[in-house]
Formats: sequence, C-alpha cells, structure tokens
Amino acid sequence: MKKTVLILVACCSAVLCFSAAAQFAKPEDAVKYRKSAFIVMASHNQRLAQMAQGKVPFDAKLATENAEIVVNMAKLPWHAFGEGTDTGDTKAKPEVWKQNAKFKEAAEKLQAESVKLVAAAKTGKEDGFKAAFSATAGACKACHDDFRSK
Amino acid sequence: MKKTVLILVACCSAVLCFSAAAQFAKPEDAVKYRKSAFIVMASHNQRLAQMAQGKVPFDAKLATENAEIVVNMAKLPWHAFGEGTDTGDTKAKPEVWKQNAKFKEAAEKLQAESVKLVAAAKTGKEDGFKAAFSATAGACKACHDDFRSK
Repeated sequence: MKKTVLILVACCSAVLCFSAAAQFAKPEDAVKYRKSAFIVMASHNQRLAQMAQGKVPFDAKLATENAEIVVNMAKLPWHAFGEGTDTGDTKAKPEVWKQNAKFKEAAEKLQAESVKLVAAAKTGKEDGFKAAFSATAGACKACHDDFRSK
Repeated sequence: MKKTVLILVACCSAVLCFSAAAQFAKPEDAVKYRKSAFIVMASHNQRLAQMAQGKVPFDAKLATENAEIVVNMAKLPWHAFGEGTDTGDTKAKPEVWKQNAKFKEAAEKLQAESVKLVAAAKTGKEDGFKAAFSATAGACKACHDDFRSK
C-alpha cells in the first residue's frame, strides 16, 4: 500500500515538473520572464508613486489605468520561480524556496493590495489613493526585504 | 500669425516631450521596458503556439488565459518607442521612426488580432482557435520583418 502511494506521488511530481518545464524551455527563460514582468510592473508603479508623492497631479483616470496594469502584472511572475531557477542572473534569495509558503503569502498580499489600489483610484479621492498606494508599495518592499538581494 | 503658430507648436512639443520623459527617466529605461513587455508576451504566445501546433492538447480555458495576457501585453510596448530610444541595446530598426504610421498600424493589427484570439479561444473550437492564432502570429511576424533587426 505504502509503495503504491509512493509511486503515485512520484508520478504526480513528474507530471508537475513536466508541466512547469513545458512553460519554459530553460530555467534562464523563467528568470528572464519573471524579471521582465517585474520591470513592467515597476515602471507603472513608478508612475503611481509620482502621483502619490505629489510630483505629478493626481489624475483618477491615469491612476486607474496604471493600477490596472499593476494588477495584471502582479499575477504573472510567481509561476516562474520553479525548481532550478535559483541560480544565474537573479537577485532572488534562497529564502524564496526555503520559506516558500511565506513567499507565496507575500505574493498574494501584493495582488490583494493592487486590486484595492484600482478601486481606490477609481473613486477619484486622492487621500484614499495615497493610502492604497502606500499599502501596495509596502507589499513590494516587504517582499523585497525578505526575498530579494540588494 | 505664422510666428504665433510656430511658438504654439514648439510649446506643445515641449509638453509632449516632458510627458514622455516623465514616464521614463532615461531612454534606456524605455528600451528595457518595451523589451520586457515583448518577453512576457512572447512567453504566453509560445504556450499558445504549442497548442496551435498540436504539441500540447488544446485546452480552451488555458488558451483563453494565455490569450488574455497577450491582449494585455500587446497594449504596452508602443509608447516606449519615443524619441531618443532608437539606439543602445535594441533591435528596433530606424524604420520604426522613419515609417512611424506603418509601425503604428502594425501595432494596432496585433492588438486587434489578439482580441479576436481571446474570442476564438473562448468558443472552445480548436479550428477557430488555430486560425485566430495563425493571424496573431502573422501580425507578430509582419512587424518583426519590417521593424526588427535579425
């Protein structure tokens, strides 16, 4: 019985590995993909930061557009932190894999905060937008502190 | 009168330049941004290609998810082909700026085809999906042929 379970687990793991491998031909493709998703996200986050910091006037339409892109981008990078993608041209700390549940929680936090940011931008109320942006930026920072090398 | 018009045009151009500059601190940031958007788009396009070519079984849900990401990504890179971003680490040909109307048309073609691809994937009909994928891939290729160095 135990043996059967072990074989089943081994088969499932093999399937999961195959599925992840099918998405990226090489581990470095996964690294390149996730870095690209973060670069696009950071660029739109930067535009939101300029509004939140009063460097450019708050514009609800523009803020909503940028926040919606952040929401879309925030869904993407996580599946690219698969096995074998911990080396090469990456700043990801070993903690991404060692404390994977905590990493996933941090990723989910960002996704949740960015959804709230869109809602806040849509209301057109600058104070609400600033607070929501601060929470989103906080989610970025917390994850960088724990999981990204300087 | 002519002088006033010229001054007005000069002012507008200055405003437009300022606006673009506010989005990217340096031209190389724009290049990095647009390349990142293309990398993410290409990765999801690749997953769709595998289904269209029968290398992995057609799955309407998965195809729709990937096509929706292509739609989102296809909106992004174009504003990053601003003035001063024709040099450096880029494969963009001078034609992007010399034949800018044609370039914009090619960009719009991709956006239109990728929207149709989502609709086709949603129907769950493999033949329709394959035809729509072929049209989307054709839009990628046509633009690469004219505007990207090998």
